[in-house]
Order: sequence, then structure tokens, then C-alpha cells
Amino acid sequence: MVSESLERLIETLKRLPGIGRRTAERLAFHIVQTEPSFVNELVHGLNEVKNKVLLCSTCCNLTEIDPCKICDDERRDHATICVVETPAAVNAIESTGEYHGIYHVLHGTISPLDGSGPEELKINELVTRIKNENISEIILATNHNVEGDGTARYLSDLLTGFQATVTRLASGIPIGGALIYADHATLARALSGRGRF
Amino acid sequence: MVSESLERLIETLKRLPGIGRRTAERLAFHIVQTEPSFVNELVHGLNEVKNKVLLCSTCCNLTEIDPCKICDDERRDHATICVVETPAAVNAIESTGEYHGIYHVLHGTISPLDGSGPEELKINELVTRIKNENISEIILATNHNVEGDGTARYLSDLLTGFQATVTRLASGIPIGGALIYADHATLARALSGRGRF
Repeated sequence: MVSESLERLIETLKRLPGIGRRTAERLAFHIVQTEPSFVNELVHGLNEVKNKVLLCSTCCNLTEIDPCKICDDERRDHATICVVETPAAVNAIESTGEYHGIYHVLHGTISPLDGSGPEELKINELVTRIKNENISEIILATNHNVEGDGTARYLSDLLTGFQATVTRLASGIPIGGALIYADHATLARALSGRGRF
Repeated sequence: MVSESLERLIETLKRLPGIGRRTAERLAFHIVQTEPSFVNELVHGLNEVKNKVLLCSTCCNLTEIDPCKICDDERRDHATICVVETPAAVNAIESTGEYHGIYHVLHGTISPLDGSGPEELKINELVTRIKNENISEIILATNHNVEGDGTARYLSDLLTGFQATVTRLASGIPIGGALIYADHATLARALSGRGRF
């Protein structure tokens, strides 16, 4: 590499998730050759999220105001709480426009192999909410994989004894997905979870 | 999106090449949740390349010093000039360790459909060099696609009349590539360009 500063930028970009050497090089070469206003905008955007974005003290989602817009929204159903792994999952569920309850963001899953136990997650905060708020349903919307299922199981055990019903997002064949392309585990889950037509 | 500044960062990241909405979201969520030192490092890196990196007045490659390290290197063969589309291509050729000549970066290809004519490229700078420097070989190393081939053809026509030999990188089956997986055009080019074994 002919420029040390370009090489340093590539090394920094490589630390972003899903960005390998080739992509980092392409991004860095684009950045250095594009109009300066873009770099200024990017720098401004990076500084802005770092300075403005914090965790909602209620639901632990990312927000710029505390409590966040969702927790503060009187029109939402505050008796239904959807438990997700990440802020990105809140985003995904919100984009369906089908959910009108509130959220709780765990910030990860229980994953002993990665050294992540329950105390690393926002589980105490969740239990405190279930104790103090008037919750009728807890929807466990962690991912449908080993860590997500394990975390859901752990929470389900932890939350027995409270009056709230604990539910889990349905799993099965994706909409638009053909049966023959579904993996064995998905197909088996779709079968065991079949319902009346 | 619950945070306007996060949404703005996502929109800015989306303008990077090869970054769609999903990837921009993943990057933004990572950036806002990672340690602040990473963001500082990224901001520093962006500002640094923007302030330090310029074009070499000789070869038009990206550099922090003018002339660049390659143009300034007495041990390199200054009679052989390799003409490439982008600074990234210089990087790719340098990484082979097999080339010891100098470069000229065009910064694009002739592509009338995209409104990019010869005057948008560093072609005048190349002709001036051929006139003034003692060049014996000009290697046309533009990409082996329609635009790259067209640009090579244009340069080859333009550079007849000078004493330098004009050559083109060989095209054919990639090393490690099986014949049956090569596309028709590559296989045809490998056939027509076959040499004695």
C-alpha cells in the first residue's frame, strides 16, 4: 500500500462486522476519491450517533430521549412486552406495522461458549419490569436458533410464577418459501406446530 | 427507526459502494453499540485520508508525498509504464511482487453511456509522459471487459507514432481454474492466445 493513512483506514474498516479486506479496500478507495462533503457527512453522522444515542432506561432499546418514543407512547399496549435480542430486532418488528405493544431489549443471548451468561444481559431489568408493571403477555422473540431458543427457555423458566402469559413467535415455512427448499429443522417445526385450516 | 441520528447515519452509509439498506443498518447498529474508541479511530482515519492523501503529479496514483514512492524509487524500471484504471489496480499488481516498472492511473474508463469520455481520464497526462520520459514499453492493464478493452483500444491507437511498444495483459484461464467452469469468452480468448508449451 502506497499510503499509510489509507492502510490504517482499511485496518479500521476491517473491524466492522461482515467487512473483509477486499470490501474494506473498496470502501477506503471510494472514500478517499469521493467528494469531501461525503466524508464530512459521514464523520458528522458517526459523532452524532455516538453523542446522542443512549439506552432507554425502561426497555434498554437505543434512543435519543429517555424514556424512548415507544415506551412513552400512551397509545401502545403497555400490557404486552416483546423480548428481543437486539435493537435491530425492534426495528424489524416495528417495520411490520403489526405490533402495538412495548419491547425489552436483552442485548445478546445466553451463550456460555462465548462467555455470555444471564448477568451480561438485561434480564434483571426485565424481571424488575414484570414485577412492577402490569404485564399480561411476554412474547419471547429471540432468534430461532440454538442461542435464541436457549435464552427463551431460560426466560420462560425464570418467568413462571408471574401472572403474565409467556409466548414465543411461531416458527415454520417462511411466506413465499417452497416446502422443498425448507431445511429439515424448519419443516419439522412447521409440522409439529401445524394448526387447523 | 426510533433514533433520527441513527437513521441519518444509515442513509449516509448506504451511499458507500456495495452497501445496501440491510448492511448499512448492521454497520450503524454495530457502530452505536461498540466502544467509543472505535468510532474515534474511524473518524480520525476518515479525516486523515481526506487531509493527507492526494494524487501523484506524475502517475496520478493516490499518495501522501508527491511524487509518490513508486515514481520516486530509483531502483524501479522507469522505461516501463503500466496503465491501470484505478489506484486499487496498482495495489493489486504491486501485491504480486512481479512488476518493477512504474504506473499511470487513468481514474476510470472511456464509457460514453456513463458520459465518461477521454477528457475525463488522465489521458493527456499519460501522453505528456510518453512524450517527455524515455518509455520503451506501455502495458495496457485496464480491465478485460467492454469498457477496459475499449479504453485499451483507444490508447493503443493514440500511442502509435511513439517509439514505445504497446502491450496488453494476457487473458485466459485463471490459475487454479478448471476449463469446464471458464465462460465462453474466456475460453475463446485462451484458445486464440495459446502459446508453445
